[in-house]
Amino acid sequence: MDPSQVKIPPMKDLTADNITQNVHTINSLCEDERMKYVLERLVTHLHDFARETRLSTQEWMTGLLFLTEVGKICTDVRQEFILLSDVLGLSLLVDSIDHPKPPGSTEGTVLGPFHTHDAEEITTGDSMSHDPKGEPLLVVCTLKDTAGRPIPNVKIDIWETDSTGHYDVQYPGRDKPDGRCVMRSGEDGVFWFHAITPVPYPIPHDGPVGKLLKKLHRHPYRPSHMHFMFEKEGYDHLITALYLRNDPYEMSDAVFGVKNSLVVDIGRAGPEYARKYGVAEDHALLTYDFVLVSDTETSDLRARNSKEALDKLGRKVKIVNGLPVPDLD
Amino acid sequence: MDPSQVKIPPMKDLTADNITQNVHTINSLCEDERMKYVLERLVTHLHDFARETRLSTQEWMTGLLFLTEVGKICTDVRQEFILLSDVLGLSLLVDSIDHPKPPGSTEGTVLGPFHTHDAEEITTGDSMSHDPKGEPLLVVCTLKDTAGRPIPNVKIDIWETDSTGHYDVQYPGRDKPDGRCVMRSGEDGVFWFHAITPVPYPIPHDGPVGKLLKKLHRHPYRPSHMHFMFEKEGYDHLITALYLRNDPYEMSDAVFGVKNSLVVDIGRAGPEYARKYGVAEDHALLTYDFVLVSDTETSDLRARNSKEALDKLGRKVKIVNGLPVPDLD
Repeated sequence: MDPSQVKIPPMKDLTADNITQNVHTINSLCEDERMKYVLERLVTHLHDFARETRLSTQEWMTGLLFLTEVGKICTDVRQEFILLSDVLGLSLLVDSIDHPKPPGSTEGTVLGPFHTHDAEEITTGDSMSHDPKGEPLLVVCTLKDTAGRPIPNVKIDIWETDSTGHYDVQYPGRDKPDGRCVMRSGEDGVFWFHAITPVPYPIPHDGPVGKLLKKLHRHPYRPSHMHFMFEKEGYDHLITALYLRNDPYEMSDAVFGVKNSLVVDIGRAGPEYARKYGVAEDHALLTYDFVLVSDTETSDLRARNSKEALDKLGRKVKIVNGLPVPDLD
Repeated sequence: MDPSQVKIPPMKDLTADNITQNVHTINSLCEDERMKYVLERLVTHLHDFARETRLSTQEWMTGLLFLTEVGKICTDVRQEFILLSDVLGLSLLVDSIDHPKPPGSTEGTVLGPFHTHDAEEITTGDSMSHDPKGEPLLVVCTLKDTAGRPIPNVKIDIWETDSTGHYDVQYPGRDKPDGRCVMRSGEDGVFWFHAITPVPYPIPHDGPVGKLLKKLHRHPYRPSHMHFMFEKEGYDHLITALYLRNDPYEMSDAVFGVKNSLVVDIGRAGPEYARKYGVAEDHALLTYDFVLVSDTETSDLRARNSKEALDKLGRKVKIVNGLPVPDLD
């Protein structure tokens, strides 16, 4: 590199007090306003973290080696950094910020690492789990917009573990998907299917994230739940899950996914349900009414939330491409 | 795991506003007070970073995949996370916090990734570089304590690149160390040796950290410098380097290592030096007087700095094993 091309503003003598401003200065030539803002906040918080903890060289090295181990264990089917983000509550936070929900709509929650793109498409009334040891469960749902109108033809991904708490992808010999499906809502916004009653299970805890949980005296369990993902043009992509009330881990989910509005009771089919859906009376039953939010509602709410949150922090920002950057005008 | 052993305080309904407190709650059973404090600060800053930037799901994923790539490229001889810490100014900050220097003592700076443990021990007056293309440089130094007394028998590691800006370990065919040595100070605290005049060089920039620098319009260069490391029982381990004044990258070091007190001029040997050290007149000459700090002085100063910095932030802490933890009494 030709030294005459060094256009970076000269740095001052570096000390623990001015290093942060110096890093901002050297990063200030970044032409992407959003990236510059994100980096500026990242460096500020990283440095404040070190200053407030008086981080020792040994702790710093322990941290870097931990992150190295997290990276090393990642494969095509294992994403340990997402898991780390999950157990630190960051995943839930980012979802809450990026997919805000107006009152009355269905809240989102963590995606988790077990969604796949190869689930079979089933039609309403089919079964999405073939584990003979699971408790058969009838699931009957409706899908509406915030004005109460049914939304037909929404692509719905549903996935759950088998009765031992393992997803199909956790079995080395997996030859085809099970415990997962894709289906579509009908003209009346209804979709229903047969599944098994969810059970609790541990997140993968044989890696660095598991070791961290152990040091923190935390268990790796997730309460019993079933995942749902809804996609239709014009509606905000909804990733959510339903959690069973009174699960032993309901109040201590290792990845902070539980929200009150997503906790449900497993009921029993009465005579009407039994007749209508062709199951025995007392068959286990899960019902839920999902409410999707339009893209426009979501982006308006997201921008409003951004403005409000940053106003409260005394930061003057403008929204560019849906995301805040400092307003320097 | 027996669910009856779930002793974690129950979490409340999770929202963007209370998730941070919920993560602190679930981490609060950690028995290591220091680790608990570090985690509490880490989670707070991580979450505040997401809230202040209104981090999008896409940006979050970009970040996690970047960290995964950083981990993947690490090997026994390449530590990309240290490099990332270096280019974000964190390494210099942590060194400044952990190895504070009283006025008049030699400041520390970043270690960098090229120190090895296999350098040959040489005696004073020997040569530590055998690159015929480098400009021969005589280096004459003294080593004293803060009271001005010479410190004999200090183990001194010295390392620099060859004349093309590459360390020996960067050559695939390396069969023995070069451009590095270990030596000891004499009874009078003096050590001197032959080297070559340092040249600027780029940090490894073919990986994710290099890509990041490019996006930020930053160059990967370090100004010309020579590394020194001093070890003797009773003295704080000093990792430092001397930088050449007027180097094209003096004001824009990619890893923020330059401190004013470590910037030196390359002089020319006069008649006295020429005679005493057996070099021609006008031979390139570097002289420096290093001042080491005792362990006791350092730990006292570190504790005082911690107290002061945290008092200023309104945090009541006590120092345990040299590091702050919240003072809850």
